[in-house]
Amino acid sequence: MNNVRIGMIGYKFMGKAHSNAYRATPMFFPDAWKPEMKVICGRDAALLEQARAQFGWEEAVTDWRELVQRDDVDLIDINAPSNVHKAIAIAAAEAGKHVFCEKPLALTLADAKEMLTAAEQAGVKHMIGFNYRFAPAVQLARKLIQQGRLGRIHHFRAVFLQDWIMDPSFPLVWRLDKEVAGSGSHGDLGAHLIDMARYLVGEFREVVGMSETFVKQRPAAAAMTGLSAKGDVASELGEVTVDDATLFMARFACGALGSFEATRFAGGHRCTNAFEVNGSKGSIKFDFERMNELQVFFTDDAEDVQGFRRVLATDPAHAYMDAWWPPGHTIGYEHTFTHEVLELMKALEENRQPSPSFADGVKCQEVLEAVERSVSERRWVALQELQDGN
Amino acid sequence: MNNVRIGMIGYKFMGKAHSNAYRATPMFFPDAWKPEMKVICGRDAALLEQARAQFGWEEAVTDWRELVQRDDVDLIDINAPSNVHKAIAIAAAEAGKHVFCEKPLALTLADAKEMLTAAEQAGVKHMIGFNYRFAPAVQLARKLIQQGRLGRIHHFRAVFLQDWIMDPSFPLVWRLDKEVAGSGSHGDLGAHLIDMARYLVGEFREVVGMSETFVKQRPAAAAMTGLSAKGDVASELGEVTVDDATLFMARFACGALGSFEATRFAGGHRCTNAFEVNGSKGSIKFDFERMNELQVFFTDDAEDVQGFRRVLATDPAHAYMDAWWPPGHTIGYEHTFTHEVLELMKALEENRQPSPSFADGVKCQEVLEAVERSVSERRWVALQELQDGN
Amino acid sequence: MNNVRIGMIGYKFMGKAHSNAYRATPMFFPDAWKPEMKVICGRDAALLEQARAQFGWEEAVTDWRELVQRDDVDLIDINAPSNVHKAIAIAAAEAGKHVFCEKPLALTLADAKEMLTAAEQAGVKHMIGFNYRFAPAVQLARKLIQQGRLGRIHHFRAVFLQDWIMDPSFPLVWRLDKEVAGSGSHGDLGAHLIDMARYLVGEFREVVGMSETFVKQRPAAAAMTGLSAKGDVASELGEVTVDDATLFMARFACGALGSFEATRFAGGHRCTNAFEVNGSKGSIKFDFERMNELQVFFTDDAEDVQGFRRVLATDPAHAYMDAWWPPGHTIGYEHTFTHEVLELMKALEENRQPSPSFADGVKCQEVLEAVERSVSERRWVALQELQDGN
Amino acid sequence: MNNVRIGMIGYKFMGKAHSNAYRATPMFFPDAWKPEMKVICGRDAALLEQARAQFGWEEAVTDWRELVQRDDVDLIDINAPSNVHKAIAIAAAEAGKHVFCEKPLALTLADAKEMLTAAEQAGVKHMIGFNYRFAPAVQLARKLIQQGRLGRIHHFRAVFLQDWIMDPSFPLVWRLDKEVAGSGSHGDLGAHLIDMARYLVGEFREVVGMSETFVKQRPAAAAMTGLSAKGDVASELGEVTVDDATLFMARFACGALGSFEATRFAGGHRCTNAFEVNGSKGSIKFDFERMNELQVFFTDDAEDVQGFRRVLATDPAHAYMDAWWPPGHTIGYEHTFTHEVLELMKALEENRQPSPSFADGVKCQEVLEAVERSVSERRWVALQELQDGN
Repeated sequence: MNNVRIGMIGYKFMGKAHSNAYRATPMFFPDAWKPEMKVICGRDAALLEQARAQFGWEEAVTDWRELVQRDDVDLIDINAPSNVHKAIAIAAAEAGKHVFCEKPLALTLADAKEMLTAAEQAGVKHMIGFNYRFAPAVQLARKLIQQGRLGRIHHFRAVFLQDWIMDPSFPLVWRLDKEVAGSGSHGDLGAHLIDMARYLVGEFREVVGMSETFVKQRPAAAAMTGLSAKGDVASELGEVTVDDATLFMARFACGALGSFEATRFAGGHRCTNAFEVNGSKGSIKFDFERMNELQVFFTDDAEDVQGFRRVLATDPAHAYMDAWWPPGHTIGYEHTFTHEVLELMKALEENRQPSPSFADGVKCQEVLEAVERSVSERRWVALQELQDGN
Repeated sequence: MNNVRIGMIGYKFMGKAHSNAYRATPMFFPDAWKPEMKVICGRDAALLEQARAQFGWEEAVTDWRELVQRDDVDLIDINAPSNVHKAIAIAAAEAGKHVFCEKPLALTLADAKEMLTAAEQAGVKHMIGFNYRFAPAVQLARKLIQQGRLGRIHHFRAVFLQDWIMDPSFPLVWRLDKEVAGSGSHGDLGAHLIDMARYLVGEFREVVGMSETFVKQRPAAAAMTGLSAKGDVASELGEVTVDDATLFMARFACGALGSFEATRFAGGHRCTNAFEVNGSKGSIKFDFERMNELQVFFTDDAEDVQGFRRVLATDPAHAYMDAWWPPGHTIGYEHTFTHEVLELMKALEENRQPSPSFADGVKCQEVLEAVERSVSERRWVALQELQDGN
Repeated sequence: MNNVRIGMIGYKFMGKAHSNAYRATPMFFPDAWKPEMKVICGRDAALLEQARAQFGWEEAVTDWRELVQRDDVDLIDINAPSNVHKAIAIAAAEAGKHVFCEKPLALTLADAKEMLTAAEQAGVKHMIGFNYRFAPAVQLARKLIQQGRLGRIHHFRAVFLQDWIMDPSFPLVWRLDKEVAGSGSHGDLGAHLIDMARYLVGEFREVVGMSETFVKQRPAAAAMTGLSAKGDVASELGEVTVDDATLFMARFACGALGSFEATRFAGGHRCTNAFEVNGSKGSIKFDFERMNELQVFFTDDAEDVQGFRRVLATDPAHAYMDAWWPPGHTIGYEHTFTHEVLELMKALEENRQPSPSFADGVKCQEVLEAVERSVSERRWVALQELQDGN
Repeated sequence: MNNVRIGMIGYKFMGKAHSNAYRATPMFFPDAWKPEMKVICGRDAALLEQARAQFGWEEAVTDWRELVQRDDVDLIDINAPSNVHKAIAIAAAEAGKHVFCEKPLALTLADAKEMLTAAEQAGVKHMIGFNYRFAPAVQLARKLIQQGRLGRIHHFRAVFLQDWIMDPSFPLVWRLDKEVAGSGSHGDLGAHLIDMARYLVGEFREVVGMSETFVKQRPAAAAMTGLSAKGDVASELGEVTVDDATLFMARFACGALGSFEATRFAGGHRCTNAFEVNGSKGSIKFDFERMNELQVFFTDDAEDVQGFRRVLATDPAHAYMDAWWPPGHTIGYEHTFTHEVLELMKALEENRQPSPSFADGVKCQEVLEAVERSVSERRWVALQELQDGN
């Protein structure tokens, strides 16, 4: 048994989610390798120390460049804002550290590819944080498709609907700033949909998209954090430089048709990350707001009792669930991270690449950028274009 | 092919529902015997004529005693208030007419038995209007149980929740008057639950109940109809003489346990007539507000995809549905009456008792009265007591 | 009070639905003008006579050209296959008859425009059968939007999912033949979505679409009817010439974004005609499989009790419902046609155009064709292009 | 800020749930007093050490009598089987330790009262583990009722449905042994319903119940744990001495009517702990399988948009939720324990009794025993009887 010594950069929403996962893994999956919460890193020393104490890290440091060089750290966890992912990931890889990076991998496809190359050349393990894969209901979805129980896939349709910025007086937080966030709903929410589609249905062939920013100016925030703004909100307005909503359609390599929508303007939807897959032998539906459930339909059920089954994915037959509570006792959002960390630990133990890796991050970025190009040029864009470096 | 000439007594809510069924049967089930809308009967000549014209009856008469003697009528349909069921049914039977009577059959068990005896002695066909049996989803429920697909039945639990009289200023309509209605939620709503339980699970062995009238006085209504009051509402208050809610528990002859609740004080429930059955091999759930659906669970489904299936009972595999619209095109409340009339016509054609018959009305009345006795004497009451005539 | 004498051409699925509506209207809406079921028309005399007797028409004729000239007919109802709509509608209009035509209005936009022009020049009333508008829950949706209770509309997303031709051995019925049907899922299902979008959100500005035929060859059917094939299915395969699925995205004139998907390959979906609208002040959701319900969300509900409300649109406060049954007693698919016929009768009585009219049919056809052009040319297509006649 | 040093007795299902809560509290509620995981106690030294290491306790001991005397422990957490609660709780209280005991408090009302008396006489704090109170959706339910937003309460109906012992070959685990468990579904599941009813609606006045054991003999288990059996299952059968299902009806002091059902034979229900409350101004519904949601109905919503609202209780407006994740990011079963421990810590910090206390355990036991007496004597039993010591 081995401990994996973690150095984590970032201590806000994702830093908290990751910390919780590092705390939970040893208790619920005691046979796996164990993450050791060694160093937490951030820029604001006071807030950082507070996070360190609260989350349970041994040490806090403010310079990530020093951190990635330390001998007593095995893995760098990057959950700082998206615009610093690249520099840290490359430095960490070059320093021989494994890297676990939040999504989106980078602000551009070119950057993402550089990160993947750096990690591969350094021979380190790399993982990207598409945590929704690790909901047991999603694992069941994947299993049903992989085992052919849904037959040939015809349709994938997915939405990620939120409503947290509908109020025009909501301030300009960093997630609304293209310089820092790269994009808006597209990179933040759409990225999850794209990864889910790839995980379930396979690679994209071509896409066509559209985007909109409904509220084009917002009050500037004095101090911006991820999802909210602290302190006084300035009276002056600033430009929103990212999309409020992005939709696109896709054709998959396997021939399936895809429909995607990410928006932060869907009133009543706090976090509707939902998809449906239709195959020749069955269908599945998932909605993250009811993340313990998968709706499953089989065309070969007896004719008089065909219907979508509400499967509560909390039985021992479902991934990860024998580690938690008895059937019917649900888990929540944070557990997707615990399972993600478990998979990371397992991959390190077995000396293989974790999944999803930076390669998946690159593939996701390809689709994100293909959609952006499609939006900008108002045409279908084949993924091949981006793969060819055009 | 034969026409059945109908004489119908009553022209309000149920009269309208029955009339619609008589109109629809020939169109959707053209191979069945055909109800002929001969005579409609009621006390108020003006309102009656309006109903006659609107519903499409050939003739209107105000004296039911004359009606039941007419040679050009084959069947008497009784949907007048409950307190006149008995006299009409017996007179009709003695005049050699088949009788189709709305539920509850009578105000008392003794009356109900007299009606059954009269019909049997006259050798006429008799049917009682437990229309909910004839929802396709309920037919599916029945089939699954009869075919043993749910195994041995352990539990039946049912509620009939409404909220139409919650407002204390709602007036004293006839359904709130014990003299006319017999009882309140118990006889009106509970009777449907009891019949459904008998239809699905079998006979009752013993019951224990409780009752309450939450609003004990209400404004008297100038002219009372079934579900509402027309004209000016009097300022004086009158006593509510029926129950607003009645609950009871039961043991069935087969060993299953039953739970029943009927109330008119469940805010947000317009017409939640719902039941669940749990057997050793599966479970089913039904809610009339989504009457086209039956939730079905089988314990022998594969472990990873067990779950209640939402079966939309609109396929050709479901009772009556090939007569209507393509799969997925739902039907509504009124269709239960159309199917009921179809079953009546079929029974007449095949010269056999329709089901449910007056015998079912008597059985239902036994349970209603056993519950009332239990409420009044605060003890368990065995059905045997009432069957012994105690 | 006046009778409107109907001559109806077509006697299959839609002929049955319309006939039922003509029968129901006088009973449930006795104050409205009354449709008189005068003449039914079709090509196969034997089947036609059977339909006449079953549906309750006075007379049956096999030549629609004669029918449209008759003096004892006021209105021609066209529900024959789509490829004959145009000739009949124009002849009927020229003969001075009002025209009620099933959707899609015609196989091409040019044809649809000709029909509209003919009707306008003849000065007759014209209506198109977008029946889903007339579900009370949809009426409520419309009212909420019209009254501004949802604020400015940001999103409209809709799907029409069916699964009736997923089996590759399902035969080549006329709905799979481009010559007769015009298109597949797009014209059959997508047309309903487009009309619903226009009804709720307004006009389209531009679209981009994609299409697929998953099963490209099917057994030829000896005798094809609308939704099934009678008699022996031929062993030889024929080409499927219509789309199995068509998706498109849209931008509305009001600035809202739209997402549309119509498919006959969504297993488990018998008739999921569903939409969601997100506005700045609220959202609504509808699914035809639960057609009595509208989900409604308001952003200004108290913070601790915000959530989608499941409104059962069966109260007197909901359109048409005081004519039917008490609250909570649901209606079904066929009632949308009854309400549609009621609206037609009202418009005739008030001597004004019914809504939706042929103009709505033309607008729908514009969008259908814009999408087809987009699919074929793989680009965004502005509605203006088609309006300009390009 | 203070640490509360915990000595915990029991290390199975509940021991794991409590341990997780002790670990989570400091991270998510850093401002509260902090539980210190000092000593874990159990009989099997090897298994205990495994649990100690896995759960993160400092020390493991096998003799609870020594543990309760230790000076370095402030609070004793009892989650061993129900038959040892009493001895431990009294010894702990007498040793001056605060006591946190799992439900049911004891096997009999007399024992429960002794425990309460001992704790009161010792002047220690005492809490009982009715964890379901601490789901945010339940907290919202309580708030709505307390604030009068549901008006006068008319109905409370609750079920706790499970299906884990439906298979007759499932072995005789301790929860099926009356000597150890006290009762079956009644004490295990019904106890939670009773506490919930008291929490929301208030005290019980009288009850009438019924019970059944469907499978009366089961294979003996070699080594029995709470929910499953390890090792070989013996071929010989043993008697099941507890109830598989218990139902009862109740009248509350406030006049409301109650309906209760606990069963382990409801196929398809892994953990349906569900209730509904109907008041004069509104209704609420809860189902633990969707524990983040509360369905809320208000009678004074506008007539056309009345309906149950699906409130996702994950907003900052909902209890505890600002400590976790952004709105829409759900929590699970284990979080109810974390909130429970938080409330315990807060009460200790504020030097007041936690709620629910042993007094609530006694009240729950009164109802449990009143129901048992009712089942045995087949009559209504007033709570007053048990309070009078009859």
